[in-house]
Amino acid sequence: MRLTRYFMPVLRENPAEAQIVSHRLMLRAGMIKQNAAGIYSWLPLGFKVLRKLENIVHEEQIRAGHVPMLMPTMQSADLWRESGRYDAYGPEMLRIRDRQDRDMLFGPTNEEMITDIFRSHVSSYKDLPLTLYHIQWKFRDEMRPRFGVMRGREFFMKDGYNFDLTKEDALHAYNRHLVSYLRTYERMGLQAIPMRADSGPIGGDDTHEFLVLADTGESEVFYDSAVTDLTFGDRDIDYDSVAQCQGVMEEFTNLYARTDETHDQALFDAIPAERQRKARGIEVGQIFYFGTKYSDAMGAKVQGPDGKPTAVHMGSHGIGVSRLVGAIIEASHDDKGIIWPEGVTPFHCGIVNLKQGDAEADAACDALYTSLRALGLDPLYDDRKERAGGKFATMDLIGLPWRITVGPRGLKNGVVELTSRKSGESVEMPPEQAVEKIASIYATHHVTGNL
Amino acid sequence: MRLTRYFMPVLRENPAEAQIVSHRLMLRAGMIKQNAAGIYSWLPLGFKVLRKLENIVHEEQIRAGHVPMLMPTMQSADLWRESGRYDAYGPEMLRIRDRQDRDMLFGPTNEEMITDIFRSHVSSYKDLPLTLYHIQWKFRDEMRPRFGVMRGREFFMKDGYNFDLTKEDALHAYNRHLVSYLRTYERMGLQAIPMRADSGPIGGDDTHEFLVLADTGESEVFYDSAVTDLTFGDRDIDYDSVAQCQGVMEEFTNLYARTDETHDQALFDAIPAERQRKARGIEVGQIFYFGTKYSDAMGAKVQGPDGKPTAVHMGSHGIGVSRLVGAIIEASHDDKGIIWPEGVTPFHCGIVNLKQGDAEADAACDALYTSLRALGLDPLYDDRKERAGGKFATMDLIGLPWRITVGPRGLKNGVVELTSRKSGESVEMPPEQAVEKIASIYATHHVTGNL
Repeated sequence: MRLTRYFMPVLRENPAEAQIVSHRLMLRAGMIKQNAAGIYSWLPLGFKVLRKLENIVHEEQIRAGHVPMLMPTMQSADLWRESGRYDAYGPEMLRIRDRQDRDMLFGPTNEEMITDIFRSHVSSYKDLPLTLYHIQWKFRDEMRPRFGVMRGREFFMKDGYNFDLTKEDALHAYNRHLVSYLRTYERMGLQAIPMRADSGPIGGDDTHEFLVLADTGESEVFYDSAVTDLTFGDRDIDYDSVAQCQGVMEEFTNLYARTDETHDQALFDAIPAERQRKARGIEVGQIFYFGTKYSDAMGAKVQGPDGKPTAVHMGSHGIGVSRLVGAIIEASHDDKGIIWPEGVTPFHCGIVNLKQGDAEADAACDALYTSLRALGLDPLYDDRKERAGGKFATMDLIGLPWRITVGPRGLKNGVVELTSRKSGESVEMPPEQAVEKIASIYATHHVTGNL
Repeated sequence: MRLTRYFMPVLRENPAEAQIVSHRLMLRAGMIKQNAAGIYSWLPLGFKVLRKLENIVHEEQIRAGHVPMLMPTMQSADLWRESGRYDAYGPEMLRIRDRQDRDMLFGPTNEEMITDIFRSHVSSYKDLPLTLYHIQWKFRDEMRPRFGVMRGREFFMKDGYNFDLTKEDALHAYNRHLVSYLRTYERMGLQAIPMRADSGPIGGDDTHEFLVLADTGESEVFYDSAVTDLTFGDRDIDYDSVAQCQGVMEEFTNLYARTDETHDQALFDAIPAERQRKARGIEVGQIFYFGTKYSDAMGAKVQGPDGKPTAVHMGSHGIGVSRLVGAIIEASHDDKGIIWPEGVTPFHCGIVNLKQGDAEADAACDALYTSLRALGLDPLYDDRKERAGGKFATMDLIGLPWRITVGPRGLKNGVVELTSRKSGESVEMPPEQAVEKIASIYATHHVTGNL
C-alpha cells in the first residue's frame, strides 16, 4: 500500500479520553474511531490487524478439528427463556423489541442458540464428538465502557461449543481447546497464561482463563514465576490424542496460577518464596466445561450406544478477538508507539523515502515495493512529500517490525538501511538483500483466510 | 474435510416453509438454519460459501484501489438526526434504547457514519480521492421476511463510499465501482446486468442496479437481449484510467436495460423486436452517485485548491453478499440440487468411496485426499458407511462441481471416475490424472483472505 492512497489518520496529540496506553496508541495510530460510548469503527490499519487475528483464530481452530460456522447477532428471547437465562442475565444484555413486538436481544454469547441447532439436527452418539465455533460481533451493554476496545460494548469474539457423549470425551475437548489456544496466542506474539478461574454466568466447575500479564489488566493474578518459562513452541500435536492434549494441559496448568477469584493463599505460600508473583493480567480467553447444564435445560439428547437418550456433555470456549488487539499493544510498545509482533503486524515492513520526488530515490522505492509484493509480502510505502523526521515518527507510532529507509546518499553506495522497530538497530545493505531478509523473517508467519 | 467429522445436516424432505428453490436447497443441503423470522445461522457449508464470497469482494475492491475498514453494527441515533433520516426512515429501521436510555439503531446502511468519520479526519483536497468500504452485518426489520437469505432481516452487505473533490472525479469513482462489480460477479459465475434504477431512500440521480436474471426475482426487468452477450472476461483494467473505466461503463450500460421503476416503453419499443426481453431479476448490488447530499447536511468539507471549503462529492455502492448465495443457487441448480460455479464452491471436489471399510478403497481415497490437499485444494471426502446411492444423492444435492468416485472394481483397473456435476459426464482415469485435472481447473480460481 502507498500511504498517499491509504486512510491512516494519525494524531499528533494524545487524546484526552484515553486512560490506557493501548487505547491512546490505537487512536493516535488511526486504528479506531469511537462512534458512540464503547462502540468503535475499525479504521483501515486497525481492521487489517483485527482481520489477521480472526484468520489466525480460524486456522488454529480448524487445525484442532473444530468446525467454523456463523450465528447471527440477533437472537430470539424465547431461547433464553428456555435456559432460564433471559431473566437471570443482567442489564448488560441489550434487549430489543422488533416491529412485531417480539422480544429479541443482541447476543452476548451463544450457548442457547448452538444447543438449539444441535438438538434440531443431531440425534445419535455416532455424530459425536462435534465442536462448532463462530467468530461474530457480540454486545454487552457495559455501564461504564472504557479502555477503548478492551472493554467496549460491541466486541468481536470467537466462541466455540463442544458436544460429547461422556464427561471424559468433553474433558478431552477442554484440553484440546487449551492446546489450540496456547498455540493461537503464541502465534500472535503473546504469552497468555491459563489460570484457574471462576465460571460466572456461564456455569460449570472446570474453567481456565488465559491472561496476558500487563499493569493495566483488570484482574489481580497470583502465580509461580516458573509458569512464565513455559513456551508452546512448534510442537506437532495430534489433536485426537487424549494423552498428548492432557500432557500439554498438565504441563501448563500444574504450576500455581490463579486469578483473585479462585486465589488460595495457603497454596500460594507453598511456592518457593523467590517464585511467588503477584501481578495484573488482561483476560483474552476462557474455556469451560459445564457438563449437561444446557443440554438438560434444553433437551439436547442423543441416542447412546445402549439405545437410551443421553444428555450431551458440553463446554464453551472463547477468545476475545477485538480485545486482543488492545492486549497485544499493552504487552508490546514503547514510548514512541506500538511494536507489532511479526505474526500480527498489519504490514510486513515500511518503506521510507527520504527524498520523495528525487528520481533515483523514487525509482529505488518503487523497485523495493514491487519486489516485496512479488514475493507475497505486504509493505507500506510512505510516499508522502514530508520531511524524514515526520515519516520516522509515523513509522515508529504505527509499529511495523521492520523499516527500510531509502535515500540518495545510501543509494550512491548501493545500499538502503534496514531497521528493527524493536531493537532500533539499523544495518546498511543492498536493496535486494533487504528484500531477502524480510522474506526470510516472514517465511514462518503466513496467514491465510481460507476456511 | 472428512464428512464424518463435519457438520452438514442434509434434509431428505422438502421443507414446507421454503417457497423458492434457493431457500429450499440451502435448507436441504444443511447450509442454513432459521433462528427467528428472517434471521439465520450459517451452518458450516453455508458459511464456507459466504466467506468465499466475502473474500472475493475484498480482493476485487482492493484491486480497484478501495480501502477496507469496518464500522460497527450499532449506531447512535444522533448521527441520523443530523442527516434527517432518523425520522424519514421507515419502520424497517430497528430502533433500540440502551441501558442509559440513549437512542441507538442497528444500522441498515452507513452513509451518516462514514461521513462523520470523513469529516473528523480529512480536511484537504490533497487527501482525495478516497473510497472506503466495509462488509458488515446489517438489519432491516422487514414486515414479511421470506425467501430465506434473499430477503432476511439480518443480512451481510458490502457498502462502499467514495469522497471526491468534483462531480467529474465522483463519476469516475462510480464507473470504477461498476467495473469492479462486473468483475466480482463474473468471478462468482454470475451474469449480473447493470440496469438504470431508482435511488430510493439513498437519494441522488445516477444509479444502476445489478440484476441476475431469474424467475424468482423480485423486480420486473426490460432489456435488449444483446446485453446478455456482453462478458467482462479477463481484461486488464487500470482502475486509475478515467477513459478505460468510462469505456467499460458505456459498453455495459448503453444497451437498454431497466427495472420497472425506470422503464420507458418508447425506448423499449425502439429496440428491434426480436431483441426485446421482459423478465424477472434478483438485485445483487447497486451503485449511486448522490453528489453533496450528505456532505452538505453533515458539513463534510475539504479545503479546495483555491483555499475555499468545498463540500465533497459522494456516492455509495453496495453488494448484497449474503443474498448472493441465494442468487447464485437460483441461477445455477437442477432438480437434483445445487450446481456451484467453480469460483465459489465450498469444496473443490467430492470424493465418494463406494466401499467404505474396504482396505484398498479406503487407502486409495486417503491417498487422493492427501494429494489434493498437498496441492492446496480442498476436497470433501464422504467417508461414511453408507450405500453409494445415498452418497451420490448427497453430492448432487450440495453441488460440488466435480466428484471423484472410487470403488474396488475401478481400482482393479487402476482407475477412478471423475464426474462433472453440471454435465453429468463421467470419465475414468488413473487417480493421479484426476488430481492433476482438478488442480488445473482451479488454477484460475484462487481466493485469499488477506486484506
